[in-house]
Amino acid sequence: MTLREEALHIHRINKGKLESTSKVPVRNAHDLSLAYSPGVAEPCKVIHDKPETVYEFTMKGNMVAVVSDGTAVLGLGNIGPEAALPVMEGKAVLFKSFAGVDAFPICLNTTDVEKIIETVKCLEPNFGGINLEDIAAPNCFVIEERLKKEANIPVFHDDQHGTAIVTVAGLVNALKLVGKKITEIKVVANGAGAAGIAIIKLLYSYGVRDIILCDSKGAIYEGRSYGMNKVKAKVAKFTNREDEQGDLVDAIKGADVFIGVSVAGALTEEMVRSMNPNPIIFAMANPEPEIMPDIAKAAGAKVVGTGRSDFPNQVNNVLAFPGIFRGALDVRATHINEKMKIAAVEAIASLISDDELNADYVIPAPFDPRVAPEVAASVAKAAMETGVARLKIDPKEIKEKTRKLAIIGKSE
Amino acid sequence: MTLREEALHIHRINKGKLESTSKVPVRNAHDLSLAYSPGVAEPCKVIHDKPETVYEFTMKGNMVAVVSDGTAVLGLGNIGPEAALPVMEGKAVLFKSFAGVDAFPICLNTTDVEKIIETVKCLEPNFGGINLEDIAAPNCFVIEERLKKEANIPVFHDDQHGTAIVTVAGLVNALKLVGKKITEIKVVANGAGAAGIAIIKLLYSYGVRDIILCDSKGAIYEGRSYGMNKVKAKVAKFTNREDEQGDLVDAIKGADVFIGVSVAGALTEEMVRSMNPNPIIFAMANPEPEIMPDIAKAAGAKVVGTGRSDFPNQVNNVLAFPGIFRGALDVRATHINEKMKIAAVEAIASLISDDELNADYVIPAPFDPRVAPEVAASVAKAAMETGVARLKIDPKEIKEKTRKLAIIGKSE
Repeated sequence: MTLREEALHIHRINKGKLESTSKVPVRNAHDLSLAYSPGVAEPCKVIHDKPETVYEFTMKGNMVAVVSDGTAVLGLGNIGPEAALPVMEGKAVLFKSFAGVDAFPICLNTTDVEKIIETVKCLEPNFGGINLEDIAAPNCFVIEERLKKEANIPVFHDDQHGTAIVTVAGLVNALKLVGKKITEIKVVANGAGAAGIAIIKLLYSYGVRDIILCDSKGAIYEGRSYGMNKVKAKVAKFTNREDEQGDLVDAIKGADVFIGVSVAGALTEEMVRSMNPNPIIFAMANPEPEIMPDIAKAAGAKVVGTGRSDFPNQVNNVLAFPGIFRGALDVRATHINEKMKIAAVEAIASLISDDELNADYVIPAPFDPRVAPEVAASVAKAAMETGVARLKIDPKEIKEKTRKLAIIGKSE
Repeated sequence: MTLREEALHIHRINKGKLESTSKVPVRNAHDLSLAYSPGVAEPCKVIHDKPETVYEFTMKGNMVAVVSDGTAVLGLGNIGPEAALPVMEGKAVLFKSFAGVDAFPICLNTTDVEKIIETVKCLEPNFGGINLEDIAAPNCFVIEERLKKEANIPVFHDDQHGTAIVTVAGLVNALKLVGKKITEIKVVANGAGAAGIAIIKLLYSYGVRDIILCDSKGAIYEGRSYGMNKVKAKVAKFTNREDEQGDLVDAIKGADVFIGVSVAGALTEEMVRSMNPNPIIFAMANPEPEIMPDIAKAAGAKVVGTGRSDFPNQVNNVLAFPGIFRGALDVRATHINEKMKIAAVEAIASLISDDELNADYVIPAPFDPRVAPEVAASVAKAAMETGVARLKIDPKEIKEKTRKLAIIGKSE
């Protein structure tokens, strides 16, 4: 069987990938009297008296909604909510397998921003967190921003922040290799979708000050009159300090880092040659990167990362989101803030020791079982330190718990 | 430990009762490439081309949403969506334990009828059916009616129809015992909430023509000027043929059957004595019935059913909803229509043979493992016969499958 056939097969024989399972199976009348009437009235009454106890007596505290409108699914684009369901079920499976987080797909029968926001707010009682997924830009920015303000549980758009966190973790390690300081580098990013915007925002939080973001129309600068939107206008304010105009080919000259979240072939050999010495390239277009790693290296690139599992340094969101939600849920965080994202970056980067670090190993492997526990503990710690945690828990405990709950790398 | 303590304990140690579980755990890179990127793109593409295949490749076809706004929870009333969550988790557990149906709680952060309808419609891509639960009358009627028209999956308000189906099944058997024909009896029901309305509608579908429905203000008749709503006005058109006025004490005179879905103590010994010979009493107020069984029997009642597990003839919805959804999902029914409900009534009633039938056994026990398989097969058959099934499947197969999936009565 080809991979394609095998993938269809496992989806067909299992009828999808996710099921709802009882933690207290009901086999007899006594079980029933505890799980349902009349016993169930007891936790109901307690929660009614003290709303916060919903986290103690229900699934809420460990349950994440994977919310999508099906408008920007993988490389498939706007395929609608039904066709997006296999991806959201898959995402839920990753949450569970990597960090023991329960998750449930919410593929929405609407692409209207207000309706999406209203629906998710209506669903809040059931969930401890919201993972937004595969919602096209610029709607994704509006939806996340509004929900962060209007919901009382953490909201995280993984296509933005998951990708950003793993990319920056890789960059932090790559910079050690080439001996450059993050505050001194020039970064050029290509692609102003969800991931591109989030990456440059996180780089800015991290101290990078010389950033140019390009889209298909070239460098974005303050006052550009074409192809702008609110988010790009905001970005123009803190990037491209000289308001340079022109294409990627102009912007890339003298850059230390290229970050591609755009299309195959966007970066040429010549462009790499025009960068500063020892350039670092993250070419994450899928399935074909902006430049193939061997070509980039031949042109002088010191470190190359892609989105693919068949090349070194894979930027895979699965390194981030399971641990981030594990940590946020465990301390009952109200938000996932910048400090928590930076904690995730540093947790991921820290797992590669100086001895192990090399050009083909700046990002841990997706199935490195140390990652989710480390991320969970660091994110929880940052949440407690920044005052968004409603519980105080020893990060070591969270690390140990995550290790136990994860099934990756374990035999059946 | 008391039942109360034990119930709190099992909810606390398990953090609720429901989890989402992967049917294809991801332990290594190969698993990941099938369950998620890149393999997952294959079922996505197939579903995008042929929307109906969402039933073949995803969880949808076996997944029911248990939707509540928390306004009429058990005997607790309007306790809100968070406090209702333990009940909805419990309901989901029953779906799984009794008939292998996956179910997920959707406790809504709104009590606005339009918002509830819109939200459920937005969620349709993820679910094969909608079980409305614990939504107060009269909103529950409007919500169900609208969703039945506007959604393409079966919608079933269990508090109405589940209770109605089991009650009528018990009545069918009780009538055999007293030798009365269903088309000739006089039924008086007390309580014009969700269950009361649904019971008299189903009795009417079943051929009963002499029905009086009472609420707290007495008999409902066409043109009554007080305490009416749209649903009661509709009911008045096909019940109370003589437009009798007065209280329950007047209406009950000469009745063959009393159906109580009201409050403790609503039926007195004297009222029972004023009924026709061999009266049948379903006194389902919870936890205290309208009349205690021993008192009803002393006053001449031939058969008494209640909602309680500690008396004979328990009217328990769990006899109906798991099998009904199992059957409806398996033939991919678009609706749960009257014929399917009647098929469920007859399936439940049929499980007690004429030899076994007696005044203390007109309704099968909640944990009788024959019930869900029998109901599922009968409901599926009726769906196919009435043209609402999108698949044709041998009912025997459905019966066998349900038997295998259920865990009730089986040892661990």
